[in-house]
Amino acid sequence: MSLLIKGGTVVTADQTMRADVYCADGRIAAVGEALDVPAGAEVVDAGGALVMPGGIDPHTHMQLPFMGTVTSEDFESGTAAALAGGTTSIIDFVIPDPQQPLMDAFRTWRGWAEKSVADYGFHVAVTWWDDSVHADMGRLVRDEGVNSFKHFMAYKGAIMAPDEVLVRSFERALELGAMPTVHAENGELVWTLQQKIKERGFTGPEGHPLSRPPEVEGEAANRAIRIAQVLGVPIYIVHVSCKESLEAITRARLEGQRVFGEVLAGHLVVDDSVYRHPDWDTAAAYVMSPPFRSKEHQAALWKGLQSGNLQTTATDHCCFCADQKRMGLGDFTKIPNGTAGVEDRMAVLWHHGVNAGRMTPNEFVAATSANAAKIFNIYPRKGAITPGADADLVVWDPKASRTISAKTHHQKIDFNIFEGMTVEGSAAVTVSAGEVVWKNGTLDVRTGRGRYVKRPNFSPMFEALGKLAARTAPMPVDRKLPTAAE
Amino acid sequence: MSLLIKGGTVVTADQTMRADVYCADGRIAAVGEALDVPAGAEVVDAGGALVMPGGIDPHTHMQLPFMGTVTSEDFESGTAAALAGGTTSIIDFVIPDPQQPLMDAFRTWRGWAEKSVADYGFHVAVTWWDDSVHADMGRLVRDEGVNSFKHFMAYKGAIMAPDEVLVRSFERALELGAMPTVHAENGELVWTLQQKIKERGFTGPEGHPLSRPPEVEGEAANRAIRIAQVLGVPIYIVHVSCKESLEAITRARLEGQRVFGEVLAGHLVVDDSVYRHPDWDTAAAYVMSPPFRSKEHQAALWKGLQSGNLQTTATDHCCFCADQKRMGLGDFTKIPNGTAGVEDRMAVLWHHGVNAGRMTPNEFVAATSANAAKIFNIYPRKGAITPGADADLVVWDPKASRTISAKTHHQKIDFNIFEGMTVEGSAAVTVSAGEVVWKNGTLDVRTGRGRYVKRPNFSPMFEALGKLAARTAPMPVDRKLPTAAE
Amino acid sequence: MSLLIKGGTVVTADQTMRADVYCADGRIAAVGEALDVPAGAEVVDAGGALVMPGGIDPHTHMQLPFMGTVTSEDFESGTAAALAGGTTSIIDFVIPDPQQPLMDAFRTWRGWAEKSVADYGFHVAVTWWDDSVHADMGRLVRDEGVNSFKHFMAYKGAIMAPDEVLVRSFERALELGAMPTVHAENGELVWTLQQKIKERGFTGPEGHPLSRPPEVEGEAANRAIRIAQVLGVPIYIVHVSCKESLEAITRARLEGQRVFGEVLAGHLVVDDSVYRHPDWDTAAAYVMSPPFRSKEHQAALWKGLQSGNLQTTATDHCCFCADQKRMGLGDFTKIPNGTAGVEDRMAVLWHHGVNAGRMTPNEFVAATSANAAKIFNIYPRKGAITPGADADLVVWDPKASRTISAKTHHQKIDFNIFEGMTVEGSAAVTVSAGEVVWKNGTLDVRTGRGRYVKRPNFSPMFEALGKLAARTAPMPVDRKLPTAAE
Amino acid sequence: MSLLIKGGTVVTADQTMRADVYCADGRIAAVGEALDVPAGAEVVDAGGALVMPGGIDPHTHMQLPFMGTVTSEDFESGTAAALAGGTTSIIDFVIPDPQQPLMDAFRTWRGWAEKSVADYGFHVAVTWWDDSVHADMGRLVRDEGVNSFKHFMAYKGAIMAPDEVLVRSFERALELGAMPTVHAENGELVWTLQQKIKERGFTGPEGHPLSRPPEVEGEAANRAIRIAQVLGVPIYIVHVSCKESLEAITRARLEGQRVFGEVLAGHLVVDDSVYRHPDWDTAAAYVMSPPFRSKEHQAALWKGLQSGNLQTTATDHCCFCADQKRMGLGDFTKIPNGTAGVEDRMAVLWHHGVNAGRMTPNEFVAATSANAAKIFNIYPRKGAITPGADADLVVWDPKASRTISAKTHHQKIDFNIFEGMTVEGSAAVTVSAGEVVWKNGTLDVRTGRGRYVKRPNFSPMFEALGKLAARTAPMPVDRKLPTAAE
Ligand SMILES: [Zn+2]
Ligand SMILES: [Zn+2]
Ligand SMILES: [Zn+2]
Ligand SMILES: [Zn+2]
Ligand SMILES: [Zn+2]
Ligand SMILES: [Zn+2]
Ligand SMILES: [Zn+2]
Ligand SMILES: [Zn+2]
Repeated sequence: MSLLIKGGTVVTADQTMRADVYCADGRIAAVGEALDVPAGAEVVDAGGALVMPGGIDPHTHMQLPFMGTVTSEDFESGTAAALAGGTTSIIDFVIPDPQQPLMDAFRTWRGWAEKSVADYGFHVAVTWWDDSVHADMGRLVRDEGVNSFKHFMAYKGAIMAPDEVLVRSFERALELGAMPTVHAENGELVWTLQQKIKERGFTGPEGHPLSRPPEVEGEAANRAIRIAQVLGVPIYIVHVSCKESLEAITRARLEGQRVFGEVLAGHLVVDDSVYRHPDWDTAAAYVMSPPFRSKEHQAALWKGLQSGNLQTTATDHCCFCADQKRMGLGDFTKIPNGTAGVEDRMAVLWHHGVNAGRMTPNEFVAATSANAAKIFNIYPRKGAITPGADADLVVWDPKASRTISAKTHHQKIDFNIFEGMTVEGSAAVTVSAGEVVWKNGTLDVRTGRGRYVKRPNFSPMFEALGKLAARTAPMPVDRKLPTAAE
Repeated sequence: MSLLIKGGTVVTADQTMRADVYCADGRIAAVGEALDVPAGAEVVDAGGALVMPGGIDPHTHMQLPFMGTVTSEDFESGTAAALAGGTTSIIDFVIPDPQQPLMDAFRTWRGWAEKSVADYGFHVAVTWWDDSVHADMGRLVRDEGVNSFKHFMAYKGAIMAPDEVLVRSFERALELGAMPTVHAENGELVWTLQQKIKERGFTGPEGHPLSRPPEVEGEAANRAIRIAQVLGVPIYIVHVSCKESLEAITRARLEGQRVFGEVLAGHLVVDDSVYRHPDWDTAAAYVMSPPFRSKEHQAALWKGLQSGNLQTTATDHCCFCADQKRMGLGDFTKIPNGTAGVEDRMAVLWHHGVNAGRMTPNEFVAATSANAAKIFNIYPRKGAITPGADADLVVWDPKASRTISAKTHHQKIDFNIFEGMTVEGSAAVTVSAGEVVWKNGTLDVRTGRGRYVKRPNFSPMFEALGKLAARTAPMPVDRKLPTAAE
Repeated sequence: MSLLIKGGTVVTADQTMRADVYCADGRIAAVGEALDVPAGAEVVDAGGALVMPGGIDPHTHMQLPFMGTVTSEDFESGTAAALAGGTTSIIDFVIPDPQQPLMDAFRTWRGWAEKSVADYGFHVAVTWWDDSVHADMGRLVRDEGVNSFKHFMAYKGAIMAPDEVLVRSFERALELGAMPTVHAENGELVWTLQQKIKERGFTGPEGHPLSRPPEVEGEAANRAIRIAQVLGVPIYIVHVSCKESLEAITRARLEGQRVFGEVLAGHLVVDDSVYRHPDWDTAAAYVMSPPFRSKEHQAALWKGLQSGNLQTTATDHCCFCADQKRMGLGDFTKIPNGTAGVEDRMAVLWHHGVNAGRMTPNEFVAATSANAAKIFNIYPRKGAITPGADADLVVWDPKASRTISAKTHHQKIDFNIFEGMTVEGSAAVTVSAGEVVWKNGTLDVRTGRGRYVKRPNFSPMFEALGKLAARTAPMPVDRKLPTAAE
Repeated sequence: MSLLIKGGTVVTADQTMRADVYCADGRIAAVGEALDVPAGAEVVDAGGALVMPGGIDPHTHMQLPFMGTVTSEDFESGTAAALAGGTTSIIDFVIPDPQQPLMDAFRTWRGWAEKSVADYGFHVAVTWWDDSVHADMGRLVRDEGVNSFKHFMAYKGAIMAPDEVLVRSFERALELGAMPTVHAENGELVWTLQQKIKERGFTGPEGHPLSRPPEVEGEAANRAIRIAQVLGVPIYIVHVSCKESLEAITRARLEGQRVFGEVLAGHLVVDDSVYRHPDWDTAAAYVMSPPFRSKEHQAALWKGLQSGNLQTTATDHCCFCADQKRMGLGDFTKIPNGTAGVEDRMAVLWHHGVNAGRMTPNEFVAATSANAAKIFNIYPRKGAITPGADADLVVWDPKASRTISAKTHHQKIDFNIFEGMTVEGSAAVTVSAGEVVWKNGTLDVRTGRGRYVKRPNFSPMFEALGKLAARTAPMPVDRKLPTAAE
């Protein structure tokens, strides 16, 4: 089975060129003008549109049991929605309960994800610590293609990792050549503020952002980064939502530390006024952590992307419908945290990024796929258009205009945080593993066609870190010790 | 009993003037030229020297039980040494053991301090938390003249306060109009690094700074500041030793937060090469926490003082003699942490500050007394030369040159971290509570003449913080809630 | 003639105390509780209000010939309005035309100012350079009590000082112990933008801020500061209006450089939406340089004041009435630049500063008088409440509420940029040189009662700068030179 | 003619892979494992070494007439030395005298460069302004393949461009889609300091850095960046040598501005102690502008590279031999400014960058070729290993150790600023336009084989800048104007 995408302009993270793309056996076989391809290949006429690497969403939660319920979106529906938006891979999260063996949880999630229709991988959360966790991290990295671990600095009393767990796990990750990642919010402060806010009479969703102000995120981001610095480990901060944590990242990067930051499409364009919406369901629909922020933070996040201090864009896709959100009627701390977005990220980024002059199309590719692939060490298999790469592509029509709405989206949720936003630029055709899976507004997928993507450990930065550590290692002083007689 | 200091140039934090100073009943009665004073007053001829407020050292540990031993300097010898150097007040620390009632510890320390020969006060440490701590904080503030509380973010397994204690105690301090202070080092990281460093074969004092790098301090300083920010509390960081924590302070101050930083004379002029001294006793003598740092940090600290981001200078005077230090022979983590300095701070600051063109004499007064008095709310009783203020003065001879040495100092310790440093400028005469206590190189004090100084709570900044909190307080949204029927 | 102000709370930059203030012969004679004063003194009952140093406005332009017209406010009316608002001193500007001898201009301005009803001094502008300017700077400093020189980095083709003039003049100021000050805007960019903006069809006042964006100010501030740094001179930036120039100041101060920044009351509370007001006269009334900025800059300026990176507050009081402003109908570059404020600065600062929790009353005094007095070396004669100081005082009623309006103000201008703002806190009584000049809403002054205040050169910072320069001066290398034979 | 490089590991800016590289007709024809290539191709066995894009040195001065002499290195010898070090392209500078038509100068330089043995291009300097310069910039861009213009902010009285020239030229560059670049030093300050330093008795080379301190560079960098910001133009700062200018770049990039910075290999590893060398010839050999800096700046520059705030590395290769340097015997301002390095840049960067753990091999490629190619819009023709790209390659032996010396280098100069430095990693084979030009320590080139490389204008960032400008353009306010009657 082979496929020729012709007549398009290939746009990658580092160049733009008129070229056809020929795919065979799920991979890109050739890129160039006037390709000589075997007869019988399926042909997609790009019609002058852009051909880009399919998006990678490095932060989703399909079928997640959380806060007493389970997200409405499962791996099949979620990856299908992703494809409809031009995203061809996701990295989801395995989140063990405290005391649950990591391998058990991993197997459970692998089972849930079997029905995916696009490629996927997993970050595995370290929510507790003992020798078995240490051992399971090794098995996950060496045998299961996991090269990143997640840590929650919030959710006190549940999955929060105190400094001790962070330190142990980061050390282990370094040994294994794996990337530690954190959800950065100071859990103690969140807990304290939740009580205070409730005491002051707040019950509705507007209490949510008040209990998780930017300083709380900035503190945790800085703490995780400092721990990583001391241990000589790289680190990746998920869903950076505010200038405080961006500043912590920026400060560290300016010192030469290998720190990475992810920003959600939602945090770039939705502001915190939503929490004061007079309709409870609407306000509750936006409850996620970290919460949406004021416009000042949005502006900072864009600059973070533009300056390269934030490298990746994601969605933290985590769907709860109105009836689930209502579990928190009367107590905002009980509203399940999460919003959708896996389908809309690419369009939102294109419209507010490229069309607005904030980024070039190449920078768009870097931010939506190539950088995530590099950081999580699957580049150029993913995130590139080069012979040998997986044939995950999107034919992007920069002129196509559409209005985002829950009424028309493919996500399994009754709300869309971008509702009513008209964007110019959208996925005309999506190709996954060499198959046309989205075209003419129609999905064409079969359950389980998605593949689990193993990610190798020891990306190139680890060798540099090792050399750095060796070069700067101090030596003990050789001394004659004093004796009691002296 | 009255005293006239004549012929000097009065230097305070905000002005310089030719003036005589007349003291009566322990207080300053008049300041001016050609004062008309009662007959019979003792006269000190300043001979053209400078008359400045006596120094305040806001960070000392006299007679401290610590790491299995007790400091060699007690309240009598320590305050006497202070007077010899021009320092007329200290603020020491009450450090309860975990589970020990704060009031019990406070009474113990008050007893130990009775023999002081200069004025003194206490910060009280909060090393644990329960309702009794909450209650005792109230009693200390309201009845005992304590307006500041100390928290150790290091010393895991001993007196370390985790985030939960910090949050509870900071909240309580705000209620009481008292200042929280922290020793900022991430205790988990220190502990981890100690193990790692020992595993790499380090046993000597050079292992000490490796286990407490600047990042570890910077992390903790930032965390404490963020917690204070979220809670709306002012905060004071003791012994800022590195650019990382200075940056955390500076960042916060630039945002308008009320954050204060203290720097030790030692950190300004001693660098970390001392830990690699071939003589174990010498290297061990410098073991304190945070450790001495590289010259780059020294330069940063001076700039912190000059820019006003650090306001006070102190010593963390905490004396252990060579035989005590040797408890850590073979294991640097067992070397008692602490160095002396209460006698030399003023001269070191003058020489490297004023003589070097880094500060004006007025700025010297601010950094050595007035600012501490303001922050801890005893200004202008202390730190000023104005009618009504305590007659705590130093007649400073800016031309007098001397070489600092353990052989000649008055401190009860067999080592001086400034050994061999020649400084120009020293205390010719020290006056405490209107009495000449140091003159012609001779101390004239009687045991117990020092007084416990009660410090009132609610310094002016608390009113501003209250107005700020009120102005920025959000209001709940008034909503009609959805019902199941919707 | 003597005056007793009783029953008040004295508030200075460094303390707050219940005290009466006794004034005699134009000076403060005593400060204390239950003062023993001669019979016959006039008594003002402060009635529990605050007694503070009278305000110093270090930046006004009375009777200024500018852009083809002359300001509507002269020295008499302007200083009277100042007194009505609690400001008892101004520092105005002598602005020679290019090629005009500085001494000539100085004498002209001295003549104009003779009728002032409050105390005043002058900064003298250096708008060109030759040997006579060098010489006149010396005469002004040594004989005439001028200790500061102004430089305009904007107004190309008129009074703009290019780098060469800045360098020459700053060097000379250092020699003389005088402070260089700058109006920081890049004149070349302003000129270019004016042409561009006009080419794009802008004729109205909204073109004004577009031609002077914050970057243009930030560039110039940084340049002036760097020149001062290289030459080892202190520097004072007038009317800092944006975060860009604040950042330049802050950066330098963090490096230990002696840089000072002034902020106008207007820039703190008026934003740039005024330039888009549909009424031309209203929009034009706000035309001044630098222009009012967006709210983001306002927030930054407040933080600059709070962090101490901005030290003084002023008004750039420079009045043009509507008929004068209309000179720029059809061409915004011809609208005379300037707005009023000398009367309202104190109230605006109190209301938005102290009442809002941004500053304490002591910090208010620092920002409205003491800091300016220190920087321009007239402290404690001005800016303090201490025996010997000039009896320039304001009895401040923190509860008095009023609404600012051109209809009721004493300024000689038909517009008020704070029109309609209700402020709590105002001057109940103003005392100048020991005389009650404002009370019960009535001015009681006679023409010419104000005095020219000579300001001595070589404030204390100059000695520190000299020591610093000496300590860090490099030495030539002594070498044997190569010869042709080698 | 075709060439196969086999057995190597291909390293590009974004990936590392085992692959052979097949070159035909001067271009890369195929990249992959086990390539099927025509018989008869020349084969280079990479023997496990790395195959990287040949270096691009974007800053050289071959055959430059400067300061009364001409550099000893011409285009032939210089490009040959470049090839010996693995650098396959240079971008040199056309520097018209003031009043000289740009086209005339361009033709002169094109003539001089005809004999080059590696590919080359030109930045053209704008040293003065009138309409002809405006017109010639257009011709150079549209007809001659120049897409960057250089401006000297120093060299007062010679080629210094005042703000007015910068503004005019930057505006013009934006119109043309060309990149403005600057040599950033404040010429007025340099001139003033030169006089001062000489007055203080400095005659030798140690006077040189004193006359050009980092602040002088930082000021100019910031000014150029602000001008670019105001005009909406991208900007490239050549030879960033100090933290001050790095900070200006970083600040701007953090704000989203498109600013680029270049660092010289010399500034990364040579410090300013060289100017105090007792041998005059040695000290003089290091005279270049900006001068070498202290180690603190070196550390900052490395971090600049690591954080991505500096993107390119260059040499400012500009050779003067000892007899030329001696023109400045007795007056350091007359020592011709310039040092060599085009041959050694790659090895110095590899050794101190990659071997030291500061950068990965991919980051090395970005810093030595790919980034320059992208910024100057010749990527992927240069700087990439991809079919269609120019076959400019270096086979890099990471294990080969050598000691740099003037005795063995190929540069036409009697001194090497890296003399005695042993580096591990060097160019085993260099391929230019598909020809093996350097192998086994031997150059094999013929005069004039190098090609002039036209660089197209309007790199992708210009489209983004245009969209940004359009999105943020303000509109005039439509008003009814007041009339005299009102
Ligand atoms: Zn999260
Ligand atoms: Zn998540
Ligand atoms: Zn401590
Ligand atoms: Zn201590
Ligand atoms: Zn001005
Ligand atoms: Zn002005
Ligand atoms: Zn240059
Ligand atoms: Zn050059």
